[in-house]
Amino acid sequence: MDTQFPDAVVQAADTRIVFVVMDGVGGLPDPATGRTELETARTPHLDALATSSALGLHRPVAPGVTPGSGPGHLALFGYDPRRWQIGRGVLSALGVGFPLRPGDLAARLNLATLDEAGNVSDRRAGRPDDEEGRRVVELLASGVRAPDGMELHWRAEKEHRAVMILRGEGLSGALADTDPQATGVPPLGVAPADPGAERTARAVERILADAREVLRDERPANALLARGFALYAEYPSMRDRYGLRCLATARYPMYQGVARLLGMDVAPTPDTDAGAVDTLAGRYGDHDFHFLHFKYPDSRGEDGDFDAKVSAIEDLDGLVGRIVALEPDVLVVTGDHSTPARMRVHSWHPVPLLIASEWCRGGGAAFGERACLAGELGIIESRDIMALTLAHAGRLGKFGA
Amino acid sequence: MDTQFPDAVVQAADTRIVFVVMDGVGGLPDPATGRTELETARTPHLDALATSSALGLHRPVAPGVTPGSGPGHLALFGYDPRRWQIGRGVLSALGVGFPLRPGDLAARLNLATLDEAGNVSDRRAGRPDDEEGRRVVELLASGVRAPDGMELHWRAEKEHRAVMILRGEGLSGALADTDPQATGVPPLGVAPADPGAERTARAVERILADAREVLRDERPANALLARGFALYAEYPSMRDRYGLRCLATARYPMYQGVARLLGMDVAPTPDTDAGAVDTLAGRYGDHDFHFLHFKYPDSRGEDGDFDAKVSAIEDLDGLVGRIVALEPDVLVVTGDHSTPARMRVHSWHPVPLLIASEWCRGGGAAFGERACLAGELGIIESRDIMALTLAHAGRLGKFGA
Repeated sequence: MDTQFPDAVVQAADTRIVFVVMDGVGGLPDPATGRTELETARTPHLDALATSSALGLHRPVAPGVTPGSGPGHLALFGYDPRRWQIGRGVLSALGVGFPLRPGDLAARLNLATLDEAGNVSDRRAGRPDDEEGRRVVELLASGVRAPDGMELHWRAEKEHRAVMILRGEGLSGALADTDPQATGVPPLGVAPADPGAERTARAVERILADAREVLRDERPANALLARGFALYAEYPSMRDRYGLRCLATARYPMYQGVARLLGMDVAPTPDTDAGAVDTLAGRYGDHDFHFLHFKYPDSRGEDGDFDAKVSAIEDLDGLVGRIVALEPDVLVVTGDHSTPARMRVHSWHPVPLLIASEWCRGGGAAFGERACLAGELGIIESRDIMALTLAHAGRLGKFGA
Repeated sequence: MDTQFPDAVVQAADTRIVFVVMDGVGGLPDPATGRTELETARTPHLDALATSSALGLHRPVAPGVTPGSGPGHLALFGYDPRRWQIGRGVLSALGVGFPLRPGDLAARLNLATLDEAGNVSDRRAGRPDDEEGRRVVELLASGVRAPDGMELHWRAEKEHRAVMILRGEGLSGALADTDPQATGVPPLGVAPADPGAERTARAVERILADAREVLRDERPANALLARGFALYAEYPSMRDRYGLRCLATARYPMYQGVARLLGMDVAPTPDTDAGAVDTLAGRYGDHDFHFLHFKYPDSRGEDGDFDAKVSAIEDLDGLVGRIVALEPDVLVVTGDHSTPARMRVHSWHPVPLLIASEWCRGGGAAFGERACLAGELGIIESRDIMALTLAHAGRLGKFGA
């Protein structure tokens, strides 16, 4: 059996790592200028760092493969996303702080509107506000019975988003989505993807039918669309694998969920990006590894707004200045994937990576896609970033005599 | 099962390869100049070669992972160090020329001093000279009986270093070190790392107790500390894998040991680095593959002496001029790992690599970390260097029709 790296050579050290994820930071050039969002942005703090840092690019999953946020983040933290697959349901449940146990089945729900013919007329039930979403989810929690011998839990997430958790013996996560991803058609049945999932499929089918009964007189949220069915399996924690006491500071439940999955502590949700850096500064000494998640480059990329993504990156550059002032032993700045504004979606393009520490060859020109391509790290797999981060933090020992 | 490369496509050719290892040649920049040791060194021969050679960098084990000398060299010769793991004991036994057989157990020993309370007061017994070391080891060889049904062999290595070989049926290498790596504490017991190692642990425990009895009246070497217990398993030879008749010329036993492990012939130990090139010139025609090992860049790096490492590299550059004059078909110049003077230890940083042959794209600026980063080979895994070397030597055929 091959040795597992970096786990096999982890050693203790009194060093601090700050790991900054600028979600979707990688991009594509504006045809008019030939420069990407990151290359266009005025980022004096990042560019100053780049001259003395190790630069490179990383591939989240495999060449050409576009990751979701879950796989993207797992890879960043050294969990090969081809091996460790988390369903959206589990991520959502963890994101709302539900104390999942191994074997629990979780699914992401949309509150939705069906017309009189039973076809989906709005996949998001008119985008209710959080309070209205919670009210509807409470109706479900009090009105839908759990299948015999099982526990059933409901949680509102945000707006039309909710999550359902089913707890029982021998559940399966091999269920297809009921969300048809389209309007004018009915929700799909709960289809088992393998024979072992039939009992679970019948239980979920009954729950969703009961839910429609409970919501019969509600408008616009009179039905549920489910997706991302997944069983929760316990992950080896970053504490156990790397010896790191980790703190995650993120403004969106999903990223808090990934962090919980890997055993990180999760800071109270900050109100602003600057507030996330306040949290970092305030709790700096309590943890070895600080994960900070910043969402806007991705959001603006998905909006297709090149200039807004540039601005979002420029705003974060200012925060980088504050982080540098804390003098972490290692500062990593990267993204979980690229979100080119021109594409309006996540993409497969390798993601800029900067590792700042005392132990870099350096000489980089700036923090941007082309400068990173010339960097000393080359193009690496995202799952190898964590080993490099630990090495730069003096937290990996020598392999062999 | 995947095809094994390069083994599957090896073909014969009448070509000669010189493979020069400048131990620890890779480095980090002097903050004052921004240039590494290699980039600082005046290396006219290497730089001239670089213009027409294939340049690149290589990663010894995995990103972020720092190799010991054993794994570093195995990787250079095309043996994946994650699969082929050699213990220090086996390396030492091979290094002193002991004819190991598969199943032999070997351990590295330090002659050490215990105080009256039985605590280690000097892990190296006052660093005896080679002659004194040999005298003590001879006492052990004549005074300690082998366990029933086993053979026991002792060899002095250098100064306080020795090696013990136990030969018998069903031995295990899963024993923890008895060297506590500290003074003021007693040696550790011989702890089996798995249940199958208990019988071996008891045998070794008795040997070490007998040794203390034999050394009772000796000062300062009155005890042994053991580490790197390892069973010898036969490796497929480079002759069998690549069809190469190999000769190793090295001044330190450990590198001779790695060479023997891979079935290389080993030249008599040269007195100087220049003497190693004399050996090469004198025996040039007898072998297809000449491995030359030069230790000083690593030693000076471990001393933390940037300038001395620069000088060591400059000295070797002169020898490269003599090697080029032999007109080998392929000349490889690289290191087994980086040893930045600023870090004073081996490191994980990719290692400069130069492959000179008729079949290069060339255009390199110099032999240095940054020039190699821009080189035609990119950043590769060390275990792939041998395939490239063979290819440049016309010793790999086409794969598939």
